[in-house]
Amino acid sequence: MKLYTLLLVATSCLAQNNADTLVSPQVHADRKVTFRILAPRANEVTFFGDWMALNTKEKMTKDGNGVWSITLGPLPPSIYLYSFTVDGVTIADPVNPRIKLRARTSASMVEVPAEHAALWQARDVPHGAVEINWQKSKAINGETRWIWIYTPPGYEKGNRRYPVLYLFHGSNDTAGGWVLAGQANFILDNLIAEKKAVPMIVVMPYGHAVPFGSPREVQAKNTSLYEEYILKDVMPLVESKYRVAPGRANRAIAGLSMGGGQSIHIGFSHLDLFSAIGAFSAAVPSDFDKRFAAILNDPKSTNAQLKTIWIGCGKDDFLIKRNQEFSELLKSKQIRHVFALTEGAHTYTVWRKYLGEFAPLLFQ
Amino acid sequence: MKLYTLLLVATSCLAQNNADTLVSPQVHADRKVTFRILAPRANEVTFFGDWMALNTKEKMTKDGNGVWSITLGPLPPSIYLYSFTVDGVTIADPVNPRIKLRARTSASMVEVPAEHAALWQARDVPHGAVEINWQKSKAINGETRWIWIYTPPGYEKGNRRYPVLYLFHGSNDTAGGWVLAGQANFILDNLIAEKKAVPMIVVMPYGHAVPFGSPREVQAKNTSLYEEYILKDVMPLVESKYRVAPGRANRAIAGLSMGGGQSIHIGFSHLDLFSAIGAFSAAVPSDFDKRFAAILNDPKSTNAQLKTIWIGCGKDDFLIKRNQEFSELLKSKQIRHVFALTEGAHTYTVWRKYLGEFAPLLFQ
Repeated sequence: MKLYTLLLVATSCLAQNNADTLVSPQVHADRKVTFRILAPRANEVTFFGDWMALNTKEKMTKDGNGVWSITLGPLPPSIYLYSFTVDGVTIADPVNPRIKLRARTSASMVEVPAEHAALWQARDVPHGAVEINWQKSKAINGETRWIWIYTPPGYEKGNRRYPVLYLFHGSNDTAGGWVLAGQANFILDNLIAEKKAVPMIVVMPYGHAVPFGSPREVQAKNTSLYEEYILKDVMPLVESKYRVAPGRANRAIAGLSMGGGQSIHIGFSHLDLFSAIGAFSAAVPSDFDKRFAAILNDPKSTNAQLKTIWIGCGKDDFLIKRNQEFSELLKSKQIRHVFALTEGAHTYTVWRKYLGEFAPLLFQ
Repeated sequence: MKLYTLLLVATSCLAQNNADTLVSPQVHADRKVTFRILAPRANEVTFFGDWMALNTKEKMTKDGNGVWSITLGPLPPSIYLYSFTVDGVTIADPVNPRIKLRARTSASMVEVPAEHAALWQARDVPHGAVEINWQKSKAINGETRWIWIYTPPGYEKGNRRYPVLYLFHGSNDTAGGWVLAGQANFILDNLIAEKKAVPMIVVMPYGHAVPFGSPREVQAKNTSLYEEYILKDVMPLVESKYRVAPGRANRAIAGLSMGGGQSIHIGFSHLDLFSAIGAFSAAVPSDFDKRFAAILNDPKSTNAQLKTIWIGCGKDDFLIKRNQEFSELLKSKQIRHVFALTEGAHTYTVWRKYLGEFAPLLFQ
């Protein structure tokens, strides 16, 4: 046996199902995508992709070799999440290395590229970097947690100081989500290259301060503990390690879903620290009107302090009503804000666009 | 329905198998580990962990709720890779977020912590960071590839220049492997804190220059194309962006398995660039004796140039014979080197130890 064969045998032993030559996903030139899984002994295999309606599934078809497949689309260019359900067990695609890391369950990702590189794709422009920092948290049980931090192209040169966007992920995601699924780094690279956004640092912490999946009474403490974590651990690290421009005018806070709720809560609680708030398909805090009554009832001061409040939600998002009500509330109180009511649902396909809309509004 | 419930429904929809409360893996105080998967309709579920012999499996047992489980161990402290095979389909653990990213197939990871933090665990010491850089490759088809780069604690302060270790992963791994599974960052943090290793930069590129799983005749070109990639893309980025100490005395090259073969090939081909070579369970090039005859036949010059040649391989590794032969060859030619014949097989459990042995030998 040749060495190369030996290596293949060894390295594929955790997936020894003769799936070594199976191709999945396969993105065709017409933007249709074929998904495949080798499961000869399965009785039923179904497919879910995050462009589909929640809780729907497509049936896959088995061929004579035990390969189940389905071809869907054409799909608009994006990166989609998908999973298979094999006789009731929902799994990521076993042969696709592009995994959506999560707080608990995982799924796979498929990229349907645009003919000309879209804003979220890598273009031939200077690239920033994303630095993973590890920090023993004072706020959260002495846990060593990671924080992903984007620095713009050329950061390592010179002594320039940069404004900072704190950017939060959603429930069941990770600190890497905005990079690995959200392509936040490429979106910023491209906006900066086009001079649509100013060079900025983007700080992406891990948003589950209590363990994901905790009982509801524990989960209820997540936002306040996360707030403490941001204030006592994350911000001091950022302000001491990175060349950040000082003051609230140079700080923005934004997030998606759960992270949108967190950025609303933390942002409005600390107008002394942040001058812009972004809420993407946000889990708007249900007690917003009571908690922030003073801010709501003083539009002159609030509007003077918050340069940008940007709210975006898709028409098909299960949080649309709450976001519409939030915008209505702000409007009724004459709090200046943008409400972007867009196509789409609760997916990164939408959130990448929102970051592309929001980042250019900041720090200029 | 409360908002929190809504969010859970939405975010878990890709794994809607009522596995929301299932715990897997569960590491017990006695270092036994229970693995579980909910698969009520499966007929056979087996388990493989990378501490087991290759191509063996353990049968799992189904309970009345359709949960298959197995308890194994006690296991020595380490991070292990494992997978389930459900009716012939090998998959990562659907509810464990700690995924071993790979070039093709994926597996899960379980950490069995040591009573006192081991060298590969996060200790309460200053932490370095790992920066992900994206670069459009000149050598490889204009592909935008990522490179993971460790910088030691305090790198951002001052103007000190650091020596560089180029550290390569194995076949079917990714540029993140040495961090996410190998814990290279914590190993370096801990060695540096103990003053056992000098602060250094560690460069971790993606080792598949031709796509993983290519036909053998394409795969045969991987090493030479990777060499070109390292020389034309990776090293220029490192030398221009980072504060690196100049010259061959400040450069080492090492890798595991396929990456060990690459570091042998590139290291011995470029004695002008590297002064230390590490080969961990290496896929030693089969034509080494012919290709490097000049080096083998001039031990005085070779020994003067190569400060360190470190070869490590486990007794249970399928590559042990080839590594023993490699050491014998060097010995017969009076080429000075260390050959560490250790316990263990072809796993990160071994490679973490090797990095802990190798790094202290460098640059001092």
